[in-house]
Amino acid sequence: MKVAVLVSGSGSNLQALLDAIAAGRLPVQISLVLADRPGIRALERAQRAGVPTEVLRPRAFAQRADFDAALAAACAASGAELVVLAGFMRVLGPRFVDAWEGRCLNVHPALLPAFPGIDAPRQALEYGVRITGCTVHLVDRGTDTGPIVLQQAVPVLPGDDPASLHARIQREEWRLLPEAVRLYALGRLRVRGRRVEIVGEEND
Amino acid sequence: MKVAVLVSGSGSNLQALLDAIAAGRLPVQISLVLADRPGIRALERAQRAGVPTEVLRPRAFAQRADFDAALAAACAASGAELVVLAGFMRVLGPRFVDAWEGRCLNVHPALLPAFPGIDAPRQALEYGVRITGCTVHLVDRGTDTGPIVLQQAVPVLPGDDPASLHARIQREEWRLLPEAVRLYALGRLRVRGRRVEIVGEEND
Repeated sequence: MKVAVLVSGSGSNLQALLDAIAAGRLPVQISLVLADRPGIRALERAQRAGVPTEVLRPRAFAQRADFDAALAAACAASGAELVVLAGFMRVLGPRFVDAWEGRCLNVHPALLPAFPGIDAPRQALEYGVRITGCTVHLVDRGTDTGPIVLQQAVPVLPGDDPASLHARIQREEWRLLPEAVRLYALGRLRVRGRRVEIVGEEND
Repeated sequence: MKVAVLVSGSGSNLQALLDAIAAGRLPVQISLVLADRPGIRALERAQRAGVPTEVLRPRAFAQRADFDAALAAACAASGAELVVLAGFMRVLGPRFVDAWEGRCLNVHPALLPAFPGIDAPRQALEYGVRITGCTVHLVDRGTDTGPIVLQQAVPVLPGDDPASLHARIQREEWRLLPEAVRLYALGRLRVRGRRVEIVGEEND
């Protein structure tokens, strides 16, 4: 299965996918790494792994919907059957979401539905929770509201600041996201309303 | 330290407190078990443990605020320095909350701020989370919004219904609530805005 990955930053989640593929743990091929800005480390990582890259800048488009449509079309043109948002820092509009509904995964640094949107580790610290985590979910039209595929709890520790907490969460994302992509690629996810069932055997 | 416990049902969290006290793990005395209805199992548990009980029925009061004030006064009259809501099924009004601010703990069957209010295990299942849990927090004027003392994550398992999930969460509540009361009684909680710091040594 071909997978397109959308990135905006350092690409550590992209790297986790590339590492899992290289290690034979993830039976997919990344057909395209698509960025919304040039010069980011995620693009270097893709190029080093021999993965095609493309940059689409929002300001190159007259309207936001055109940007969304171009993103959706570029993913499709790469042959991807799944799109992964791996630290993509833009909310995608309906032109994108509707085109990839049920076939787009996002990773979010909180135990949704707690702390959606930006700066989730900071939100968690300010609320004063003892436990936060990360979530891989299917993307719908809302902000971080789609059906949940996998979650991992992460403790908040005394003395944490947003950066130290985010770093602890990210280490779990690097395990959780490749696992969710693997389950998707193996056809083991069944979406029933808001609930995602994991079907089939672990030894397939 | 004397502690008053408010109950509405079976009293399994009350039993967890009584068991921890009997085992020498919780250096407090329960000075009163206060119920909003007669004939419930929590009252039997209290009586079996030799703990004074009292029933205050809301309909015996002309106004809700009078009921809240009577609850607050009964707790104070028992000599309690802390009130624990252990499955108390009424939202307490400002007459109670303001009187016991910073000195009242509640246990809630979810990882707050996710799924406040009633039927939290059902809410969690309907949302489709993979991880929920329980929270012990200080009570403020909101519904399950007060500063968080302790949390424990609990997995949602395939085939769970609200009852099976709630039972799994409750087993963690029975550990978490006595631990939170112990930290309070030992003076180890420092509230700084929304954040609760746990201070001091583990071997005190």
